[in-house]
Amino acid sequence: MGIVMGPNQYGKSECRIVTINRGSSRHTIKDLNVSTALRGDFDDTHYTGDNAKVLPTDTQKNTVYGLAKEQPVGEIEDFAVRLGRHFIDTQEPVKGARILVEEYAWERIPVAGTGHDHSFARSSDEKRTTAVTIDGSETHVVSGLKDLVVLKSTGSEFWGYPKDRFTTLGETEDRILATAVTARWRYLHTDVDWAKSFGSIRETMLETFATTHSYALQQSLHEMGKAVLEKHPEVAEVRMSLPNKHHFLVDMEPFGMQNENEVFFAADRPYGLIEGTVTRDDVDEAPRAWYSLPEF
Amino acid sequence: MGIVMGPNQYGKSECRIVTINRGSSRHTIKDLNVSTALRGDFDDTHYTGDNAKVLPTDTQKNTVYGLAKEQPVGEIEDFAVRLGRHFIDTQEPVKGARILVEEYAWERIPVAGTGHDHSFARSSDEKRTTAVTIDGSETHVVSGLKDLVVLKSTGSEFWGYPKDRFTTLGETEDRILATAVTARWRYLHTDVDWAKSFGSIRETMLETFATTHSYALQQSLHEMGKAVLEKHPEVAEVRMSLPNKHHFLVDMEPFGMQNENEVFFAADRPYGLIEGTVTRDDVDEAPRAWYSLPEF
Amino acid sequence: MGIVMGPNQYGKSECRIVTINRGSSRHTIKDLNVSTALRGDFDDTHYTGDNAKVLPTDTQKNTVYGLAKEQPVGEIEDFAVRLGRHFIDTQEPVKGARILVEEYAWERIPVAGTGHDHSFARSSDEKRTTAVTIDGSETHVVSGLKDLVVLKSTGSEFWGYPKDRFTTLGETEDRILATAVTARWRYLHTDVDWAKSFGSIRETMLETFATTHSYALQQSLHEMGKAVLEKHPEVAEVRMSLPNKHHFLVDMEPFGMQNENEVFFAADRPYGLIEGTVTRDDVDEAPRAWYSLPEF
Amino acid sequence: MGIVMGPNQYGKSECRIVTINRGSSRHTIKDLNVSTALRGDFDDTHYTGDNAKVLPTDTQKNTVYGLAKEQPVGEIEDFAVRLGRHFIDTQEPVKGARILVEEYAWERIPVAGTGHDHSFARSSDEKRTTAVTIDGSETHVVSGLKDLVVLKSTGSEFWGYPKDRFTTLGETEDRILATAVTARWRYLHTDVDWAKSFGSIRETMLETFATTHSYALQQSLHEMGKAVLEKHPEVAEVRMSLPNKHHFLVDMEPFGMQNENEVFFAADRPYGLIEGTVTRDDVDEAPRAWYSLPEF
Repeated sequence: MGIVMGPNQYGKSECRIVTINRGSSRHTIKDLNVSTALRGDFDDTHYTGDNAKVLPTDTQKNTVYGLAKEQPVGEIEDFAVRLGRHFIDTQEPVKGARILVEEYAWERIPVAGTGHDHSFARSSDEKRTTAVTIDGSETHVVSGLKDLVVLKSTGSEFWGYPKDRFTTLGETEDRILATAVTARWRYLHTDVDWAKSFGSIRETMLETFATTHSYALQQSLHEMGKAVLEKHPEVAEVRMSLPNKHHFLVDMEPFGMQNENEVFFAADRPYGLIEGTVTRDDVDEAPRAWYSLPEF
Repeated sequence: MGIVMGPNQYGKSECRIVTINRGSSRHTIKDLNVSTALRGDFDDTHYTGDNAKVLPTDTQKNTVYGLAKEQPVGEIEDFAVRLGRHFIDTQEPVKGARILVEEYAWERIPVAGTGHDHSFARSSDEKRTTAVTIDGSETHVVSGLKDLVVLKSTGSEFWGYPKDRFTTLGETEDRILATAVTARWRYLHTDVDWAKSFGSIRETMLETFATTHSYALQQSLHEMGKAVLEKHPEVAEVRMSLPNKHHFLVDMEPFGMQNENEVFFAADRPYGLIEGTVTRDDVDEAPRAWYSLPEF
Repeated sequence: MGIVMGPNQYGKSECRIVTINRGSSRHTIKDLNVSTALRGDFDDTHYTGDNAKVLPTDTQKNTVYGLAKEQPVGEIEDFAVRLGRHFIDTQEPVKGARILVEEYAWERIPVAGTGHDHSFARSSDEKRTTAVTIDGSETHVVSGLKDLVVLKSTGSEFWGYPKDRFTTLGETEDRILATAVTARWRYLHTDVDWAKSFGSIRETMLETFATTHSYALQQSLHEMGKAVLEKHPEVAEVRMSLPNKHHFLVDMEPFGMQNENEVFFAADRPYGLIEGTVTRDDVDEAPRAWYSLPEF
Repeated sequence: MGIVMGPNQYGKSECRIVTINRGSSRHTIKDLNVSTALRGDFDDTHYTGDNAKVLPTDTQKNTVYGLAKEQPVGEIEDFAVRLGRHFIDTQEPVKGARILVEEYAWERIPVAGTGHDHSFARSSDEKRTTAVTIDGSETHVVSGLKDLVVLKSTGSEFWGYPKDRFTTLGETEDRILATAVTARWRYLHTDVDWAKSFGSIRETMLETFATTHSYALQQSLHEMGKAVLEKHPEVAEVRMSLPNKHHFLVDMEPFGMQNENEVFFAADRPYGLIEGTVTRDDVDEAPRAWYSLPEF
């Protein structure tokens, strides 16, 4: 009986990197936030402070920049795989790696009707994400998006729920439904056109949110996940975390006014939080792919 | 000789309001953050806690919602003027008002090639702003934008500056120039097509940022302000606060690599901060318009 | 073969609640942020939008306030257990609950040498936390703290690590070591004096951080966890997430100055992130206790 | 008639600096956030991009670190004055400077009943601040504090206010009063024991907030400012910005419960905002001291 180290990892978080492709005068840019974490045989540093097996996080950071120079970054999934493999292949004690990447979108500034060659404006606050796990020879890719804020001004109802002594909410057949989508989907393999798959999944989610007449945010979540899985055989499962960003109808009776679903108070906290997984019933679970990611 | 109250104001800050125009099945939405502040004869509440002249901030909040119902919100400048006038016209002790409004942009979700009738996605994090000051019969409108993040991947130099014993920065003829624009411009009067003026000013700023070959962020600031004033006779002055969002070239010589302006570290803090006013030399200053706004 | 709902939960997040115990004129206050999540048989709402089994998140919020009135809140662990049991005991479809509570600390304002009866100032930004999981008849308590920012101005070294072509970091026998502790510890049972256990664990972590001569943040993490487990038989395991808040020695040679570990630049990003578990080797793992919590 | 540059300034914002005084084995630390801004003759860089008079913000940053090494930092007011004077004295085109400093507080970690020699924990989130303006030979010091969060659980009333058609707020003779104090006070001269003055002003504000039976947050603001001015002849005026952090009594009648001022919902937005100046009636105003600071 004793006290021992259990699971652990270490790395460099939030390496902010911008690369410019100057192959022509029409530049393209990549703007990323990269976090590395290494897993393996690190007992010594924990028990005695012996760092002989500890590749410094500073070196991990340098490696992010170095590999981005060696070869164009490309899609974030590919870059993350290259980074993870590099650490495992070059450092004997490293047996696994978790690489997280967020990508920020930029658009060309329109000048005289066309996008400028080297001037850009940041697009929406939404990010494209990936979490790549390398565990020995296994590679898992969980990609996603976050901070995609969407709203339906009608086409959402909520009624038929149980009532108890703490119930004060009234039923409604017409409410605003708004959320900030965080979604993660696990790929079944890595032979994927990442950019195309991402674009199509995002579009599918948006369209399904828009066109689903919703009786519950849970229903919208399920429809969005199902639509993605139906169109994307390369995806095993989709996990979503959907805050219900409440828009409360302002009661104007005290002012002698009738508020007919026109004026709303957009609340911050508390918020509903609807989280769930939509999955195929014939694929294996992949706990290593998700370990230390949010379950939802 | 004594201790007295000097300038003061009070109000309700950050009333988050969303309105839906349901005039047709093709909804439009307005998403605003409204702050009200009243100025006037409030000595009693300060000296004795007598609130007979203090319209509660809770009532100010209700008024924001109520006026948004009474008449469509319209442009934020008009809504702010209506709010300010309402308080002055209905509360005798209120002699002035400062109304701040931020507007968040939404786009229709594309479905089958066209924008959906009632489903929206939040656009960029950029906000359109206004600060309306009513002082008795005077009305000042200072509109603006904030969090407009822009970047030039080339076309920016920085050299020829003084050196002293603390200088370590190298001169450069090619750097990334990036900033998050906060701009405020003062209108000379209120007979303005607010939406059209805003759209054109924003476009002018973006185009000028994009097309100015920059030797200093100060120069870009001046060019942007000048271009706005040249096209917009309704504008008296433009004030800008431009953080220099540094993108440092990663030194790869230790890795045996040549980084030819391709890979950059995007730094958070510290950041340069360039602030300035571009103005017409033949207009009166308007200190009341700016009082308690950031000078830059 | 088909597409199905996998694991899911829903609830109300971030119910901000302040309670005052007015039993005497010497008030005490509790300031909490409570999040509830229910687990169980919610297929209908996902598949069809039938909400007959969905206790609204609004009702969950009301329940937080109602139960806080029914009986003094007491320790956050006890309050969370009461909340979780309430939902399971009163709603047939609910089979499990996850209740998260953060507690903010307040101190009495000193007046004339003693703490005031009903006036308080917010203490440090640090929070005490708990995550209670009820799964049928099982109850798991994982308590913790977060945002405890600590710094050693000496007594920290870092050397002896592997070097590769991306290494630029120099070895050091004297550096600043700073971190913001997020710690979570799992209790073996619920027969615990929560306040006393929390106070002692926090004190142990602080003392161990202070008195450990550190060769790696990993070593400090292990020592802190080990010290807690040695003193606290009621604790099964401790998980910590420790950002290495880098303080870089400013190179003053270009200024003709010698910086002898006196002046540092406190960096924001990137940061090292050291995460790990210290555990007893003779206790069962409890994956249900941790499900949907950060692994570290 | 033309378009010209108006007021402007530029500098480096948020230089995060930590210094350690290692004069004995009992270390002391200073943890600051320093922003510099220079004013003067910068027309060239704005009009043509000629930087011959522009001391780079990078050099300003280096100067912050260099001057912190040259002489112990001492009180933030003294450090800010030294920085401002340095720029004016060494750069001919620089005619004025605005230096902002925020100081973060640390406490020694208690070990075996006494504070550790070189291990520290971050105290409350509150900051001590100064804004020093040097304008030619004039020096203005405006010091302050921010994020000092305080709460009274009783001893606060709010009634007797005007009612109109938008009024829904009920009057109360017992409410929670909570705010996050931002205060700035202008010194009449610089011959001040800064640390002592700061400590006493802070204590006076806290005590006055605690002991004032409040009929309006405006009244508390005035009492706090007046108390400071009465005790501190070195202070000309005090400006405060006090958000009314609303704690709403939860209506439990629908639950069949009586909430007797025990259970509150702590709201985020909107919030009341009470701002004002308490001043001596026999001192000159000092607009240069406040220029580009928040008026409140």
